[in-house]
Amino acid sequence: MPSHLALLSCLLVLVLSLDKFLLPYLRKRWLSGGGVAAIIPRIPTSHFKSQRSMAAAAQWSETTMLVIDMQKDFVDPAMGSPLLVAGGEAVIPAVAEAVAVARKRGIFVVWVVREHDPSGRDVELFRRHLYSGGKGPTVKGLKGAELADGLFIKEGDYKLVKTRFSAFFATHLDSVLKTLGMKNLVIVGVQTPNCIRQTVYDAVALDYEKVMVLTDATAAARPDIHLASIRDMKTIGVETPTLEEWRR
Amino acid sequence: MPSHLALLSCLLVLVLSLDKFLLPYLRKRWLSGGGVAAIIPRIPTSHFKSQRSMAAAAQWSETTMLVIDMQKDFVDPAMGSPLLVAGGEAVIPAVAEAVAVARKRGIFVVWVVREHDPSGRDVELFRRHLYSGGKGPTVKGLKGAELADGLFIKEGDYKLVKTRFSAFFATHLDSVLKTLGMKNLVIVGVQTPNCIRQTVYDAVALDYEKVMVLTDATAAARPDIHLASIRDMKTIGVETPTLEEWRR
Amino acid sequence: MPSHLALLSCLLVLVLSLDKFLLPYLRKRWLSGGGVAAIIPRIPTSHFKSQRSMAAAAQWSETTMLVIDMQKDFVDPAMGSPLLVAGGEAVIPAVAEAVAVARKRGIFVVWVVREHDPSGRDVELFRRHLYSGGKGPTVKGLKGAELADGLFIKEGDYKLVKTRFSAFFATHLDSVLKTLGMKNLVIVGVQTPNCIRQTVYDAVALDYEKVMVLTDATAAARPDIHLASIRDMKTIGVETPTLEEWRR
Amino acid sequence: MPSHLALLSCLLVLVLSLDKFLLPYLRKRWLSGGGVAAIIPRIPTSHFKSQRSMAAAAQWSETTMLVIDMQKDFVDPAMGSPLLVAGGEAVIPAVAEAVAVARKRGIFVVWVVREHDPSGRDVELFRRHLYSGGKGPTVKGLKGAELADGLFIKEGDYKLVKTRFSAFFATHLDSVLKTLGMKNLVIVGVQTPNCIRQTVYDAVALDYEKVMVLTDATAAARPDIHLASIRDMKTIGVETPTLEEWRR
Repeated sequence: MPSHLALLSCLLVLVLSLDKFLLPYLRKRWLSGGGVAAIIPRIPTSHFKSQRSMAAAAQWSETTMLVIDMQKDFVDPAMGSPLLVAGGEAVIPAVAEAVAVARKRGIFVVWVVREHDPSGRDVELFRRHLYSGGKGPTVKGLKGAELADGLFIKEGDYKLVKTRFSAFFATHLDSVLKTLGMKNLVIVGVQTPNCIRQTVYDAVALDYEKVMVLTDATAAARPDIHLASIRDMKTIGVETPTLEEWRR
Repeated sequence: MPSHLALLSCLLVLVLSLDKFLLPYLRKRWLSGGGVAAIIPRIPTSHFKSQRSMAAAAQWSETTMLVIDMQKDFVDPAMGSPLLVAGGEAVIPAVAEAVAVARKRGIFVVWVVREHDPSGRDVELFRRHLYSGGKGPTVKGLKGAELADGLFIKEGDYKLVKTRFSAFFATHLDSVLKTLGMKNLVIVGVQTPNCIRQTVYDAVALDYEKVMVLTDATAAARPDIHLASIRDMKTIGVETPTLEEWRR
Repeated sequence: MPSHLALLSCLLVLVLSLDKFLLPYLRKRWLSGGGVAAIIPRIPTSHFKSQRSMAAAAQWSETTMLVIDMQKDFVDPAMGSPLLVAGGEAVIPAVAEAVAVARKRGIFVVWVVREHDPSGRDVELFRRHLYSGGKGPTVKGLKGAELADGLFIKEGDYKLVKTRFSAFFATHLDSVLKTLGMKNLVIVGVQTPNCIRQTVYDAVALDYEKVMVLTDATAAARPDIHLASIRDMKTIGVETPTLEEWRR
Repeated sequence: MPSHLALLSCLLVLVLSLDKFLLPYLRKRWLSGGGVAAIIPRIPTSHFKSQRSMAAAAQWSETTMLVIDMQKDFVDPAMGSPLLVAGGEAVIPAVAEAVAVARKRGIFVVWVVREHDPSGRDVELFRRHLYSGGKGPTVKGLKGAELADGLFIKEGDYKLVKTRFSAFFATHLDSVLKTLGMKNLVIVGVQTPNCIRQTVYDAVALDYEKVMVLTDATAAARPDIHLASIRDMKTIGVETPTLEEWRR
């Protein structure tokens, strides 16, 4: 009995002392898809939830979904906005489904939206002519700034207001995510060559370990424009699965 | 002929001395495509006020007043907030008066406020323990985040939400001000050693030409704390008049 | 009397049309304490070149050329760098020529370069595997970080070190340019979908009034990749002339 | 014997599965000084290095020392610089000693220095008059920009160039530190109310978990100015030990 205790203590100490070494290693393995099983095959999986789901749970708690610009003025043709993204409406169901999957997995969901002053004085210069008489695309408080029908911010989600393409440009998003320990980003919304791509490139610049764009839950004015940016993003280490591939 | 020369010189000097006033106007016209020809006839030189007041007007059009953190949780003792600034309530009238003077002068007024997520996940680490059960200082939507009684955002003003001390930290404030051509800042609010000082130091780092703190429209927990920061700010070129001195 | 009026009108128009040229000069004088009186006599109006070239001079004094990543590891095949841009070497002459034109026009030239720690700890995560044994692409002090043969930093130019794609990401470039009064950017270098494009998009986000990419003094791995980004940049108001069109 | 193995496996799995919960807890304990011994008193310390040093090693690998502005123009009276910090020279030995302690502990050392263009065009506006004829405080390449005698950058250290007070303002420092997993900062150098304080406040804004200023390895023009900033920093959760207290 004492020898059992000694052994146990030993082991406990060992593992604790190793955590600094084990953790980064495990994290790397998990991220690269190997999973715990690949490293310590002797672990008796029958005593608890499968390691795969454990590893997944760990991964999801460090993952954030960024839903970008899914606002009426960008994706709802009924608004008649000059900034409507041609391919936007078609991906609303995929975005909604991606958010549902994210919530089921316990992934933190951040709704990134534009909200501009009616004067347009916080809009990019090349778009300021669109603002007059207190109106313009995604003016704060107007209908065009609302999320597209079928999309909702739930308790526990986070709303992040931006005024430029990238969700990270002159916002506190990186601060919130880094301090929460987020390492992975899954990105959906519109539109691929501008807000999606700028957010993705900034995410890479900000050293998020895994940056992912769901190729069929993002959209641009035309498929070739969409695909050209997807191709470029792949070259800088961004993963580009479909929603179906990601949800498996 | 000499009289012609005198006249010309006179006119030249006059126009040159007006450039601070004319330029913003011309720039706006030119950018919008009007060109020089379109404006010349419209300049009502005969109606010009004195050069002095015109120069002042020019200065004010390049000046922004930042009103910082004048929210109930910071300055209204009735809220019982743990972040109440002891000297805050006493300066509410001076802040209101400073804003009134700014408006009369046509100065752009920006209301800088904190608005935090009920979870506290966008608050500084050392203050997160103050957030629980959906409550905490200046939580978005709660009464403590409102402006102190007697202070109001008017049409034409701008509201800027921040989550850290400095109004420039991870916000788009510098972008809005620089593009509007703002060169001078007048700063009021609470509290001197933290949000005021950090905003001021960032403003100096961002090369605003004139940064001014109204010493009796700002406050700290104690007068000596207030004065120590005022002293330090003077050493980096910041002007520190009283409200009375500034309004002259 | 009518002739007086005509003369005065003439002069008024003349001075007004010159303000873009005069202003930077006046501002510099005023800031340094000289005042209007100190300058008036010095303006040699009789020697003025044509208004057109003066307007151009005004424009050039507010224009900066950004030369991006023209370093041996990116454009010189002899280095054998894993980050060689296939189309890079071919545009070295055009970049050199663009710089020569810029200098002749008095345009401020900024050489934007990557310089990394030998450990690779300031490189993007997806490229860190390229660094070991004190070597890696554009390591500070190594030959690969030098400018390509034929390109030189001259006195009056500025060298800006960056560690990410965009020349504006986590650097003081915007600060230097805005405070110098720069409003226009002309961008050359490599490579179009990454460093060029990210710099361009950030420049637009930072409200530079005119952002220009010289299409044949920039390059990517393949022409179609280059052109896809040029097309996208056009949609956000970026001008994309050839070197020949720009130098006219 | 099989039961032993089962037990061991069980325990291993248990601990591994707990790491997400244990780690944050342990980290918090370690950071607050309790140490592992306070939580799991049954661990037989005799089998390996003392837990205290283990915990320390963990802590030090997540700690960075920022040595700020210890350049000749700031701390060496022989330079005759207008920006000499009166109390600077006196703390050179303490700074050198703090760096020696940091190196012994394996703490990452970052040398933060100012290096300005000879033209002064990347200096704060209120200091530009100090630059002319290619000279001025801490001009890149001149003697005044060198580290004070007795201070050296060693292999493995990092040099970070800044152009404003805060080491984090418009630099990639936060990026390097966050990606290295740094959570704690120990700050030494000059001068307390400007570069030290701005760096400290930005560090708090950037959510570093523990920010520490060594009170006798930092200095200002006068002791009362130094102490006023130390007092303010304490109110936002910054630790302010002496070098002696920290080295224990």
